[in-house]
Amino acid sequence: MFEPPNSTLPSASVGCVQTQLAKIQLPAQGFELECGESLAELTIAYEAYGTLSPAADNTVFICHALTGDAHAAGYYERSDTEQGWWDAMIGPGKGIDTDFYYVLCANVLGGCKGTTGPTSLDPATGRAYGAHFPRVSTRDMVRAHRLLLEHLGIDKVNAVIGGSFGGMQVLEWITLFPGTVERAICIASGSSLSAQALAFDVVGRHAIMSDPHWYNGNYLDTGTIPEQGLARARQIGHITYLSQEMIDRKFGREKSEKGSVFEVERYLQYKGERFIKRFDANSYLRIMEAMDSFDLVERYGSLQKAFAEVRAKVLVVALSSDWLFPAEQSVELTSALVGCEKKVSYCRLDAPHGHDAFLVDIEQLAVAVRAFLPWVDPKPRANGVKECSSIMEKRTLDDSALIACTVSRGARVLDLGCGDGELLALLRESNAVTGVGVDIDIQNIIKVIDRGLEALHADIDGGLAMIADGAYQYAILSQTLPAVKEPRLVLREMVRVAKMGIVAFTNRGHWRCRLDLLWHGKMPKELRATDRWYDTMDIHPFTLGDFYELCREEQIEIVEVIAIADGALDRALTRMRFLNLGANRALVKVRAFRN
Amino acid sequence: MFEPPNSTLPSASVGCVQTQLAKIQLPAQGFELECGESLAELTIAYEAYGTLSPAADNTVFICHALTGDAHAAGYYERSDTEQGWWDAMIGPGKGIDTDFYYVLCANVLGGCKGTTGPTSLDPATGRAYGAHFPRVSTRDMVRAHRLLLEHLGIDKVNAVIGGSFGGMQVLEWITLFPGTVERAICIASGSSLSAQALAFDVVGRHAIMSDPHWYNGNYLDTGTIPEQGLARARQIGHITYLSQEMIDRKFGREKSEKGSVFEVERYLQYKGERFIKRFDANSYLRIMEAMDSFDLVERYGSLQKAFAEVRAKVLVVALSSDWLFPAEQSVELTSALVGCEKKVSYCRLDAPHGHDAFLVDIEQLAVAVRAFLPWVDPKPRANGVKECSSIMEKRTLDDSALIACTVSRGARVLDLGCGDGELLALLRESNAVTGVGVDIDIQNIIKVIDRGLEALHADIDGGLAMIADGAYQYAILSQTLPAVKEPRLVLREMVRVAKMGIVAFTNRGHWRCRLDLLWHGKMPKELRATDRWYDTMDIHPFTLGDFYELCREEQIEIVEVIAIADGALDRALTRMRFLNLGANRALVKVRAFRN
Repeated sequence: MFEPPNSTLPSASVGCVQTQLAKIQLPAQGFELECGESLAELTIAYEAYGTLSPAADNTVFICHALTGDAHAAGYYERSDTEQGWWDAMIGPGKGIDTDFYYVLCANVLGGCKGTTGPTSLDPATGRAYGAHFPRVSTRDMVRAHRLLLEHLGIDKVNAVIGGSFGGMQVLEWITLFPGTVERAICIASGSSLSAQALAFDVVGRHAIMSDPHWYNGNYLDTGTIPEQGLARARQIGHITYLSQEMIDRKFGREKSEKGSVFEVERYLQYKGERFIKRFDANSYLRIMEAMDSFDLVERYGSLQKAFAEVRAKVLVVALSSDWLFPAEQSVELTSALVGCEKKVSYCRLDAPHGHDAFLVDIEQLAVAVRAFLPWVDPKPRANGVKECSSIMEKRTLDDSALIACTVSRGARVLDLGCGDGELLALLRESNAVTGVGVDIDIQNIIKVIDRGLEALHADIDGGLAMIADGAYQYAILSQTLPAVKEPRLVLREMVRVAKMGIVAFTNRGHWRCRLDLLWHGKMPKELRATDRWYDTMDIHPFTLGDFYELCREEQIEIVEVIAIADGALDRALTRMRFLNLGANRALVKVRAFRN
Repeated sequence: MFEPPNSTLPSASVGCVQTQLAKIQLPAQGFELECGESLAELTIAYEAYGTLSPAADNTVFICHALTGDAHAAGYYERSDTEQGWWDAMIGPGKGIDTDFYYVLCANVLGGCKGTTGPTSLDPATGRAYGAHFPRVSTRDMVRAHRLLLEHLGIDKVNAVIGGSFGGMQVLEWITLFPGTVERAICIASGSSLSAQALAFDVVGRHAIMSDPHWYNGNYLDTGTIPEQGLARARQIGHITYLSQEMIDRKFGREKSEKGSVFEVERYLQYKGERFIKRFDANSYLRIMEAMDSFDLVERYGSLQKAFAEVRAKVLVVALSSDWLFPAEQSVELTSALVGCEKKVSYCRLDAPHGHDAFLVDIEQLAVAVRAFLPWVDPKPRANGVKECSSIMEKRTLDDSALIACTVSRGARVLDLGCGDGELLALLRESNAVTGVGVDIDIQNIIKVIDRGLEALHADIDGGLAMIADGAYQYAILSQTLPAVKEPRLVLREMVRVAKMGIVAFTNRGHWRCRLDLLWHGKMPKELRATDRWYDTMDIHPFTLGDFYELCREEQIEIVEVIAIADGALDRALTRMRFLNLGANRALVKVRAFRN
């Protein structure tokens, strides 16, 4: 069919889509809910983008947030001015690439956008459930979606992805159906709501339930709805979705033309009015209830117990300016997954928009998601990353080769200050290790994830609180120790989290360094040409002798010292055991002292 | 009269107090308001603690926050279980010491605790004003309080102090009545509300005004009040007063005994119920309106213009976990005051409770307030500050003497990394300078304020954004440059904010340093005995030669170099112009290069 060119369409849209309704075949007892009640009928509204592979093994399932729906991408009609809620993420060549994946998104149970919920007809009465719709849990929602997959003939999903309440559903997926999910991405979420987020929900709920049009939830019979309460609840929510910076940038203290009303007031009014047209109050309360009561620790006793059976490879993403689900909650998830030796990566994206960033600050998130998903090739390279100079490359390779000789086959290895993951990739190739990198730079983290390795986005100077004692066989500090602010803390943490530590560094006790200061009266220069004393990465240069002394004080056992001597004189000195004078570089194996 | 011992009384209470009513004598036209209307009668409710000095020159005026009142300290009856809202701050030996000061606190105009407001009788009708009470501004409130002072025969106040909306009143005091106020303390406040805070107020206001019992504000006639709306507004406010950490610590996700209601829900319910008993909805809206529309920039064009006439010495206090009035707003105030060469100190207190911290995390705040207020003697020493070792002391004194020879009399001097302010105090004595110190350590800041000097609490590694170009004649970096993370940035900022920079440092090019590395193979030790290479304060040691090079690159002009040579050999080398070998220490005068 001839399609007229239309320049207003997004360049990489999944195009025109339809929400479909799946009527799920239920057993005689219906769909049993966690609360004890059951539903006699179950309909699920969903959308699908891309093509299912013949083996049905390319499915990505999207979990939507509190007031989302199945319409994640594309448009219903050519005249639509708005696309699906995550259109920037889903489509050909986008973060979730519909050229490769079959992408599904479904409205949650209890929702009001097609899936069975309070506005659906109760087959027992022939009228809408309204306030009589039973309590549903996040687990019920995910179980319902799993039935949808079965209905569509899909056994396994390649990845489940969701932000906010969608992230909680992702956590349900990997704990409830560990065999079904290969990869999982949990964005701006947590194992439960914080007390502050709960508090805002409380006020929103009270606003709805104290509205005179609420009628104990039976407003559908009256022809009026608790508009004011619902608008208030939504307005409170909206404020919590935006960062302080963003709300300031967007509205500041600007006033409308009439001069008396603040712009932010008009915005909130608009948001409230729009919401009451598109959402049902009972539905809002049911889903909010599910989110409020979601608590993996309460259910399993601890997060480690919750994640014990997880088999998915997990990416946890926090957003820097999110105060509704602060980064600490993502770190907590990551830490628990590391604690039970699961494959997990963590990154904290610099995103100004607050909690809403997973919907709007999409660029870096899309790169991270694309890096984490398998198959897609050729992958786009992350931008803005400096290439290493050839000198540095050579040094790293040398160190790598040495480290490879030191690390045993198949070991679990932690690389502290891993850079772009080159060392870990080499070790995976040469020694078949399971590698996890830690770095402070998000560009590096994405590169490591892109290599298919695990990566944890963290500042090692803050300690390694997210990693349990003895979690790894080896921890490596390759040229990293002089660059940290707290060498003592980092060394202490290294021998805590790994059975064996490997420290590779440039020896500032080498005769050439000494002469540099003696003759030229300048602090020894880094080997890299751009470094000066005032902006060097190595803020704590040290000698082999210095290192021995620190280990002695910290009761760290020196298991082996490998001195690297480049020149003939260096080698001679080293052979004569003048290691501190002759060694250009050193590789030292250390471990916590055992009594 | 015999007083029975009562162990439940606070040890340092102002005791039993009474709220008094002052009927203010008004001219024929009444009390004219900024909105154009006027009030025929004006009554102000106030409390007083301590004794007014014969010269009436020891008054401290307290400005209360949004829903506060005149009852700041003490108790009404012995059986009262609660004291005034700032009892922890006001009393004998406390932050605001009633043994020295005569302390006044008055209910604001528009309030509902005794001062003329919507619940007062309108003399024109003989009935309560209710919704007909005119709009009042923060300026109107402060003008009314100024009439109270006149009524009490007080010309000048020693200090005005307030937190949150009280801080805004403090800003009104110093701009509106510059001749009246000697000192001012503005805590957890700003020159206007942020857009986020405005947004929360919007939702609260809408909640009240959409309550069916609101009746356009004429609810007093109906016998019912807009309870639900008022409760919602207060609940929203309450969440914003607490830090995320504190609400989590206080309630977490705990549930009540019945098992279905979260503790935080019960708390908010209780807070809402309590509030509707003690506060009037019209009054709440009027005061909130005054706060929302307070905006010094809008009124004066810029903060610098607003503060042009200020004569008070100001202390600006931010609270670390406050997200309603984030520290940036306090920094903005400070920066503007610095910009117009006013006497201003700034500190950011580490206070976990959020915005509420100015009421509850009182300990450090009280120390800072006490340090800032004059007269009180002997002052308590701030705790937890290490005394300098004798070696260090000697070095500092030497540097001080040198710096004193360099700085001209009466100059405005900025000391970057000022420590406890010893150098500035010496310079004040020897050279009569106006000294301002910058330090990252709050204990140091309090010590500097306690010396009667100005202090700015900041991390100089983050740049000196709060200080305008050329604001000072001299800026000093005494032994500070090697300790900063970003020496280049700090040096650049130094010559930006001051016409002349003075950098004093230990020369790592001295022959002894060189030999240390050469012979012992260890990084040169600090002169202080406890420092090791891995925890030294000096993360960027450098030599005189290094310093020259950096200045050259940064186009910073070296005006003068004073080399300090301790030993005979040092002196010989120095005299032979081998400064980099012979100088133990150096003092270099620098300035931005002029074309």
